[in-house]
Amino acid sequence: MNRVGILQQPRIHESAALGDEVRRWLAERGVASWTAAPWDDEPIAAPLNETDLVIVLGGDGSTLRAARWTVPFNVPIFGINVGRVGFLSEATPESWRDKLARVLEGDFWLERRLLLHAELWRDNGLVQPFMALNEVVIGRGAQARVIRLHLRVDDDLVTTYIADALIVATPTGSTAYAMAAGGPLLPPQLQNFVVVPVAAHLSLNRPLVLHENARIAIQVDMSHEAYLTADGQKSVNVESGDTVVITKHEQPCLFARVESTGFFYRRLMGRLGFSWPHLDPGPGRPATP
Amino acid sequence: MNRVGILQQPRIHESAALGDEVRRWLAERGVASWTAAPWDDEPIAAPLNETDLVIVLGGDGSTLRAARWTVPFNVPIFGINVGRVGFLSEATPESWRDKLARVLEGDFWLERRLLLHAELWRDNGLVQPFMALNEVVIGRGAQARVIRLHLRVDDDLVTTYIADALIVATPTGSTAYAMAAGGPLLPPQLQNFVVVPVAAHLSLNRPLVLHENARIAIQVDMSHEAYLTADGQKSVNVESGDTVVITKHEQPCLFARVESTGFFYRRLMGRLGFSWPHLDPGPGRPATP
Amino acid sequence: MNRVGILQQPRIHESAALGDEVRRWLAERGVASWTAAPWDDEPIAAPLNETDLVIVLGGDGSTLRAARWTVPFNVPIFGINVGRVGFLSEATPESWRDKLARVLEGDFWLERRLLLHAELWRDNGLVQPFMALNEVVIGRGAQARVIRLHLRVDDDLVTTYIADALIVATPTGSTAYAMAAGGPLLPPQLQNFVVVPVAAHLSLNRPLVLHENARIAIQVDMSHEAYLTADGQKSVNVESGDTVVITKHEQPCLFARVESTGFFYRRLMGRLGFSWPHLDPGPGRPATP
Amino acid sequence: MNRVGILQQPRIHESAALGDEVRRWLAERGVASWTAAPWDDEPIAAPLNETDLVIVLGGDGSTLRAARWTVPFNVPIFGINVGRVGFLSEATPESWRDKLARVLEGDFWLERRLLLHAELWRDNGLVQPFMALNEVVIGRGAQARVIRLHLRVDDDLVTTYIADALIVATPTGSTAYAMAAGGPLLPPQLQNFVVVPVAAHLSLNRPLVLHENARIAIQVDMSHEAYLTADGQKSVNVESGDTVVITKHEQPCLFARVESTGFFYRRLMGRLGFSWPHLDPGPGRPATP
Repeated sequence: MNRVGILQQPRIHESAALGDEVRRWLAERGVASWTAAPWDDEPIAAPLNETDLVIVLGGDGSTLRAARWTVPFNVPIFGINVGRVGFLSEATPESWRDKLARVLEGDFWLERRLLLHAELWRDNGLVQPFMALNEVVIGRGAQARVIRLHLRVDDDLVTTYIADALIVATPTGSTAYAMAAGGPLLPPQLQNFVVVPVAAHLSLNRPLVLHENARIAIQVDMSHEAYLTADGQKSVNVESGDTVVITKHEQPCLFARVESTGFFYRRLMGRLGFSWPHLDPGPGRPATP
Repeated sequence: MNRVGILQQPRIHESAALGDEVRRWLAERGVASWTAAPWDDEPIAAPLNETDLVIVLGGDGSTLRAARWTVPFNVPIFGINVGRVGFLSEATPESWRDKLARVLEGDFWLERRLLLHAELWRDNGLVQPFMALNEVVIGRGAQARVIRLHLRVDDDLVTTYIADALIVATPTGSTAYAMAAGGPLLPPQLQNFVVVPVAAHLSLNRPLVLHENARIAIQVDMSHEAYLTADGQKSVNVESGDTVVITKHEQPCLFARVESTGFFYRRLMGRLGFSWPHLDPGPGRPATP
Repeated sequence: MNRVGILQQPRIHESAALGDEVRRWLAERGVASWTAAPWDDEPIAAPLNETDLVIVLGGDGSTLRAARWTVPFNVPIFGINVGRVGFLSEATPESWRDKLARVLEGDFWLERRLLLHAELWRDNGLVQPFMALNEVVIGRGAQARVIRLHLRVDDDLVTTYIADALIVATPTGSTAYAMAAGGPLLPPQLQNFVVVPVAAHLSLNRPLVLHENARIAIQVDMSHEAYLTADGQKSVNVESGDTVVITKHEQPCLFARVESTGFFYRRLMGRLGFSWPHLDPGPGRPATP
Repeated sequence: MNRVGILQQPRIHESAALGDEVRRWLAERGVASWTAAPWDDEPIAAPLNETDLVIVLGGDGSTLRAARWTVPFNVPIFGINVGRVGFLSEATPESWRDKLARVLEGDFWLERRLLLHAELWRDNGLVQPFMALNEVVIGRGAQARVIRLHLRVDDDLVTTYIADALIVATPTGSTAYAMAAGGPLLPPQLQNFVVVPVAAHLSLNRPLVLHENARIAIQVDMSHEAYLTADGQKSVNVESGDTVVITKHEQPCLFARVESTGFFYRRLMGRLGFSWPHLDPGPGRPATP
């Protein structure tokens, strides 16, 4: 790996300071790098097609944004968490050197995470496509009134939700908003979607797990405003009668990982407040056969 | 299809009466049949290796038992529900003729459902293997005290559950005990397991979805009695320190289906009390694009 | 009872037609009546201080609005459901005559339901008071981002919620939005509040039940818009740093009831899809000792 | 306070060692004391009618047992936690001296916690009464099969649960088994019961909150074994057709408390893994008005 991009968070001071440090460290090792500090969705003038790795200096929000640039070019992400929540990151501002050195030497594994592709349709015309690494949410606006969402999977009618919102999440998103709404946990390597309503009222209030090739169509029905939001960032107005069609995105999101595969469970239990000693099998307990 | 087996429920009177009817109906069409009315796990003297279809006259409990005979021979099941719950059945005592006629003519589709294979290990020796179409439960005995269950997936430590029980369910089982314990719903064609604790106390209380190739190892830790139960039927004592290893069973369970693929959602919503009109997309609403 | 008010729903045609019928029926019995068809919160020119009963022709939304007029005058409500949901009503357009006749004759019981009083405070000044029969919700606006809500009860710090919204509901509201958000059910005669977060993220996600004399103070903390909504109808903007203080309203909401006290459970189970036969204790089962 | 009883845990070594320490400390202050180390329900030969305070050296299990001796004599409990879980205790082996000194000087408040009284009835005869500080559970035996439980409150039919078990808990019990089963949290001063099913299958799966004067009658219906367990300790066999009647116990359980009333929330959030900083209202945030 000898061409690395660095994405900084323009509004986090530590991100810029760490950026300087990472650049110097890379230069000392003879690795060329470029830096961008984009805000939101503005295009970045960076040679992504010639880049081997993108280092994201930020929290999970920064990683979600970075995915929109890296995915089309199949460039893996290496995240150093300088945000509040860094569930997607590989390293911390204290621990990145050893891990990044291993990545540059090729001593890492590629984690491929499912992305979803969403299309908003109105009057048989495509309004806008979306890509999401966490989830797509179709939900009510500021008025605290339910919306109706008719769900079809592979052209089979499933049910009508009456709820604040409906979340369609990837395994990556299963630990984000979908978890808050009561959804199950899916380790990142799974190839599934999960559909979770928020505050379902006298209608299906169970999460539904679907396979990666499912074609998920959601028709919206309400008398007030509603929104489609992808990864908690891009929001567009949805009108009554609109249909949102969700399928697997053709490319995965790649992450360069050094930690062992169990890192997902270790971090998750840490975040949920279940301390590590719980996991100790105890003295005299053999490992599983 | 010209060799059909009939499995009757020895303790349900309607099952025997319906058996006579089905046998006559098959004979009129020149289809050879054999009949068995086994109780529990007793072996049946039936030429399963030369059988094209097994008709199960009973409820879901009968189907779960029938799977233990049909799966090794790859024989599909056609269920006529004469029990209280017939979620797995294809037909009712009123509706079976047309559907069975279509199956005999080859006008049906094969539903392949994931089965799980469980092994109970003690002191590095295999105590007993199990097969289950719904779920395997490792749970407390009569004493209302929690047990500890250390979960590993593919040799990664996941967490320690402190709970009444831990359920490992197939998609088929996701609408049975796992649903009662708060698990998500998985349509039958999914290739996933779902792990759901029952009444988890200050430990992970979220369902976990896993892929079909996962190797699930559960080590049990308690000072009182515990049991492993497969499909709510076979129960064996588990000792503290035992490990239960669960993987995908090498063969699926086959069902001969005539109804369209959406039958799963229609039945599920019916059972959950969400009436069909909810599903109507309404006048003027085009089908999804 | 000889002075009765009738509140019609100005936007539901059946409500006006039923109003004519009720008026004629009352006149035949020599009962004086007045009619109002207010929309939203407009004042009504009606002699509520001289009124013995208010008949509400509408659904639960109409009853929630009617409470704002009847409560200050201690006038009981008799609801005839012409809306979609009539959980608070006593009668239907088919069944009201017998029941209303019994009420006029004094053959009824008074149901007293707890109301809550909420005050929005900003910079140590009271912005606005609210009254609610169902619930007060403090929630995010159109942007799907969490807000932080610091809860104090009787000046004791309880916890900080990170969620879409926080609901403080009465027993009446326990079957409305609070139920959708996962709250417990409270029969209407209870003197408790219930606090339920919506989609709590890595923070307390359990409902909390409080006693009627609790002083509930919620301080709001977010970088985007948030709203306070009372009974799903009145909504005002909340700013970061604002505090909402909720206590019991000094007067209850009165309902004139003819049905036996178990009506709450019968309707609830009906709405939840649990059919009545489930409740049959079965032949040979004595009543409870 | 000059007559104090000490209840030790016969099976915990630290409990006996601490007992010696507490006895010496009391003697130095001229306070007479007696000691008992009973196992389970055996009677203790102690002058409870002449005792001002009972010090419990153990965990929550010890406190639950102690309540059975102290409640009839209205003697308050002061718990020093030497068990794994000490949610009911006031002090720790490190912190007891100051707190106990304050209690002896009368500088404390009395916490009165609701107890429940349960009666098991069979064929119109009372089989056995029970008292519980946490909860009464009516649940299945070792066989993982549901039981049916018909619930009546104040002679009104409520619903039929089809579940592993039904829990009737006090506010004290709301943080124990009832919490694991999905119940709401009730601070200890509440005067309510909460009814929570465990793994309810296609039947009411919502917790139900009731007032302290409710008469809760549960009729049991199953074809296999079931048990009634009070406070996780005393278990008796229940037969199909039996009815369990639960009401408020005539006396409360008293605790001598030195900590401020908010201690319940502080401990609860600690146990649930929500760290204290979450509760900080932040700089510049005034206290609630």
